[in-house]
Amino acid sequence: MRLYDYFRSSAAYRVRIALGLKGLACERQPVHLLRDGGEQRAEAYARINPEKLLPALQDGPHTLSQSLAILEYLEETHPEPPLLPAAPADRAWVRAMAAQVACDIHPIANLRVMQYLEREIGATAEQRSQWTAHWIGTGFTAIEARLRDDGRSGLCCFGDTPGLADCCLVPQVFNARRVGLPMDRFPALVRIERHLAELDAFRSASPALQADAE
Amino acid sequence: MRLYDYFRSSAAYRVRIALGLKGLACERQPVHLLRDGGEQRAEAYARINPEKLLPALQDGPHTLSQSLAILEYLEETHPEPPLLPAAPADRAWVRAMAAQVACDIHPIANLRVMQYLEREIGATAEQRSQWTAHWIGTGFTAIEARLRDDGRSGLCCFGDTPGLADCCLVPQVFNARRVGLPMDRFPALVRIERHLAELDAFRSASPALQADAE
Repeated sequence: MRLYDYFRSSAAYRVRIALGLKGLACERQPVHLLRDGGEQRAEAYARINPEKLLPALQDGPHTLSQSLAILEYLEETHPEPPLLPAAPADRAWVRAMAAQVACDIHPIANLRVMQYLEREIGATAEQRSQWTAHWIGTGFTAIEARLRDDGRSGLCCFGDTPGLADCCLVPQVFNARRVGLPMDRFPALVRIERHLAELDAFRSASPALQADAE
Repeated sequence: MRLYDYFRSSAAYRVRIALGLKGLACERQPVHLLRDGGEQRAEAYARINPEKLLPALQDGPHTLSQSLAILEYLEETHPEPPLLPAAPADRAWVRAMAAQVACDIHPIANLRVMQYLEREIGATAEQRSQWTAHWIGTGFTAIEARLRDDGRSGLCCFGDTPGLADCCLVPQVFNARRVGLPMDRFPALVRIERHLAELDAFRSASPALQADAE
């Protein structure tokens, strides 16, 4: 397998964690999101993934895109250890938390949106910083309520075993810390993130440890 | 089952289509996204779904949120007719298209983001209109390439049977038409949407036919 990846891409980071949890070897092919106007927009990468977004995963003859779809694919093709619980309602609970990050936080505050806000809307640095803090804060508030009020979370988002929601949560916390969002409003979330950070799959997937880290 | 719904909510519309495709009866509970500052933000609904977003689905003792998670839940609990193909790589292909809509288009141009752009950033009506056209256009361009260049699409996004990607695509096309986006750049997408619009599950889920339609 080959993962088209960038050390700081939040969506690619999710897949790196899942590959680690599954114990799967995967070659990394870095695609620099900022160099030369974004290597993901260049013809060479557009032939791999016409969406011009990271990540993409090549597995034999198949080229897959969209991190949530890739995570589900890894779960179906390499079921052990599972990233989702057994009962449908629990699976939905975990998938909903993954979607809270992957649909309701990350896309609104990612690189291309911030670039558009600056260039096309003329948003100031302060407005852009507040934008990021607002959307991550809104999403984390809802996730914190879920983790705090539902008996299903434990050392990890669901129980004590890392899974799909954890793969999405940790990269988003990395982003939040990077933009300086105060995390003390989210004690349950921080407790889980601290536990996960110690696990091999999460540590080895962290941006700072990737070969293309700057 | 009970669906907390709003006739024009794109994410709820996806679930209405899936319920129709599965032939499942479901009571609708309208939650008005604009009345009184948004009924989804009021205490009564926050007790159902602390995310304060639509849709939510109650199924016996379970309350589920996030449309993608709900669609997967319906697929797991009511497998016939399937919304996903059998082979993992094909399932990933369909899920990726669903995510192209549900992660990379809809969250960036939905109501709460447009409200924030206006109130906090001071974006003009023209800038907001361009914002919507830009993000829907960017996403539809990538989906059009996928539908055009991959042999897997047919009368529907995957083959000739409606599924998960179709549930997401049709509500997004509804939104695009509503904001006046020219659709002639997306012939494959429009061809599929026209076919789907004739099917019972899609027609009966359309916003104009809901009891709370205005």
